[in-house]
Amino acid sequence: MNNFQFYSPTEFLFGKDAENSCGEYVKKYGGSKVLIHYGSASAIRSGLIDRVKDSLTKEGISYVLLGGVQPNPRDTKIYEGIELCRKENVDFILSVGGGSCIDSSKGIALGALYDGDFWDFYSRKASVTKALPIGTILTIAAAGSEGSGASVVTKEEGMLKRDVGSDLLRPKFSILNPALTETLPPYQTACGATDIMAHVFERYFTNTTEVEVTDRLCEAILLTMIKETPRVIEDPHNYQARANIMWAGTVAHNDIIGVGRDQDWNSHGIEHELSGLYDCAHGAGLAVIMPAWMEYVCDHNVMRFAQMATRIWGLPMNFENPKETALQGITAFRKFLHEIGMPINFEELGAKEADIPVLVEKFGLGDGKTGGFMPLSSEDVANIYRIAAKTTL
Amino acid sequence: MNNFQFYSPTEFLFGKDAENSCGEYVKKYGGSKVLIHYGSASAIRSGLIDRVKDSLTKEGISYVLLGGVQPNPRDTKIYEGIELCRKENVDFILSVGGGSCIDSSKGIALGALYDGDFWDFYSRKASVTKALPIGTILTIAAAGSEGSGASVVTKEEGMLKRDVGSDLLRPKFSILNPALTETLPPYQTACGATDIMAHVFERYFTNTTEVEVTDRLCEAILLTMIKETPRVIEDPHNYQARANIMWAGTVAHNDIIGVGRDQDWNSHGIEHELSGLYDCAHGAGLAVIMPAWMEYVCDHNVMRFAQMATRIWGLPMNFENPKETALQGITAFRKFLHEIGMPINFEELGAKEADIPVLVEKFGLGDGKTGGFMPLSSEDVANIYRIAAKTTL
Repeated sequence: MNNFQFYSPTEFLFGKDAENSCGEYVKKYGGSKVLIHYGSASAIRSGLIDRVKDSLTKEGISYVLLGGVQPNPRDTKIYEGIELCRKENVDFILSVGGGSCIDSSKGIALGALYDGDFWDFYSRKASVTKALPIGTILTIAAAGSEGSGASVVTKEEGMLKRDVGSDLLRPKFSILNPALTETLPPYQTACGATDIMAHVFERYFTNTTEVEVTDRLCEAILLTMIKETPRVIEDPHNYQARANIMWAGTVAHNDIIGVGRDQDWNSHGIEHELSGLYDCAHGAGLAVIMPAWMEYVCDHNVMRFAQMATRIWGLPMNFENPKETALQGITAFRKFLHEIGMPINFEELGAKEADIPVLVEKFGLGDGKTGGFMPLSSEDVANIYRIAAKTTL
Repeated sequence: MNNFQFYSPTEFLFGKDAENSCGEYVKKYGGSKVLIHYGSASAIRSGLIDRVKDSLTKEGISYVLLGGVQPNPRDTKIYEGIELCRKENVDFILSVGGGSCIDSSKGIALGALYDGDFWDFYSRKASVTKALPIGTILTIAAAGSEGSGASVVTKEEGMLKRDVGSDLLRPKFSILNPALTETLPPYQTACGATDIMAHVFERYFTNTTEVEVTDRLCEAILLTMIKETPRVIEDPHNYQARANIMWAGTVAHNDIIGVGRDQDWNSHGIEHELSGLYDCAHGAGLAVIMPAWMEYVCDHNVMRFAQMATRIWGLPMNFENPKETALQGITAFRKFLHEIGMPINFEELGAKEADIPVLVEKFGLGDGKTGGFMPLSSEDVANIYRIAAKTTL
């Protein structure tokens, strides 16, 4: 196990009707003028935004609204939010939505207190030293942004997807009401589930040895997702399955299961170019990329993939041929993704094999290598895109 | 899953030599005059206290010392600490030791800012509204107090063991260096491991249904303990096994694996009277009590005990006779405890069957019942003591 620092100070309020306490929580964490930042109009139609307004008003807290955050949140919306925060002297951002909305909120939180261009934080030109406080009301179990210090934003010019991370971006509080996710269609639900599982796998595949405790914690989240995801696809109003997935999504990404071990994150990087170029759902892109990545890097540590196959997918170990078990595990993962309605190749995703050189170019590795498990070159990345393009079950 | 609130704002610094950063961390969290509170003289002999002093001095932080915290920490030492804090205007407590030391520190933290008797918080006469900030340097993986808001203290008069809990008692930071636990003898190491496992079991046995995510997280910690504990008993200097146990101990008790489900805590309550009366190690008492409790309550939910047997102890499920599997799981637990050197009955612990009426009387249930899994009466508690008294393998 490696040395590590871990800090997750977000206060979570979980359960039915929890959003009605948002006013108290904003007050507790010092907000007096709030930006309610939200995504789609469904948050208004469903009455959620009205409940949020009521809760704030009850505590004497004033607010301004900014909606319209898109999936793969854009820099343009963030510039709009920063201007609004400055004009209205906003001192707290309440993010009502999924990971895109929360990531957009984090961008605004950074930019509102910064004299330069907020993109400097995402292009590594500036380091995070302060940010407006954020609270969240989560409506999609997926990104884990409600409990993390990370934010991923897309620059419209060139559709560049970049990230930033800092403990200062961890929300002060996050309100998790599984019932709010019940209206999510099966496809988006499955995209979220895939994202959650990918967050675990990025941590699970490591070169760090002697990490039984985090291995087992990773496996706990994956086993939960394997049990609960088909249940919500079958019945979107299964509150209990939604609840298990929601907490799994938070634990998957606040890093309590990933501390003390090297992490990979190549699948996320490789996927980001897909959702950047095609504006597809991040989870759907991961469903196409991650099993392809697994196949490509399997030989780097066959026994770790065999461990995944046996402990997570419940497959019998082939002691004479561990590689066979390892590959069976990867196939089990791809089958699972297919069964919950995810695409598994370029065609199903709406991507084009002919674009692979463009994707690799945008990935921007040049002659370098990246990744914490098996470092990959541009050629490796191209090969993974090629596997992902053609895969069938 | 139940509704819940979860807040774990402690910053963890984990790894080799981490204690040398304690000065920076005290400064970060606003300490300028520190009480260094520690347990045994071994913290001085080993040079640990000197390293702590150096780190504080380097940051210009002054300190006073108070050592001598006993296992099952006493109110008398806490009164001493409160007086010292007031006299010296201490604004931060740095706890260097195991759970007893940290729990004692929490008592001092409460009392130093309270006009009345600190015991009021433990006897439920007063509610926690403020406390001095605490940091910890952990030397025993066991109690989980380094990441929890709980404190258990023994009143010398009558040897009453009582607890208090509040998010305000969660340490600001906790420094976890597994190497500091390497000097711990096998018996104390096993006591700590038993305590960690008991913290999980108290959460695992629940009447709340649909809690797959926390079930799996509980199982993750238990599987880790089953793998790693025998390795440190075999080789106390196995840093990696110590590291896995240390993080498991923290995760076992900061409640991230116990949220959203009813918890039991009867085994802890029943044990507290043993360590209260005989001043034995809490973990040793739990090794005697917890399997006896399991046997006594098994019929309340046979399938949950069968789940423990199969998922945690790897036993085959007897589908024609689940109770057989359930009981085999409990036996596996008791065998494990015996193998790591724990007592499994009253004689091995140094307790007397003749004292059972005294233990039940001190437990103080009267005509009431207690416990979140299967509520127990005084008669039930007596029966569990009786099983615990006579058990053999």
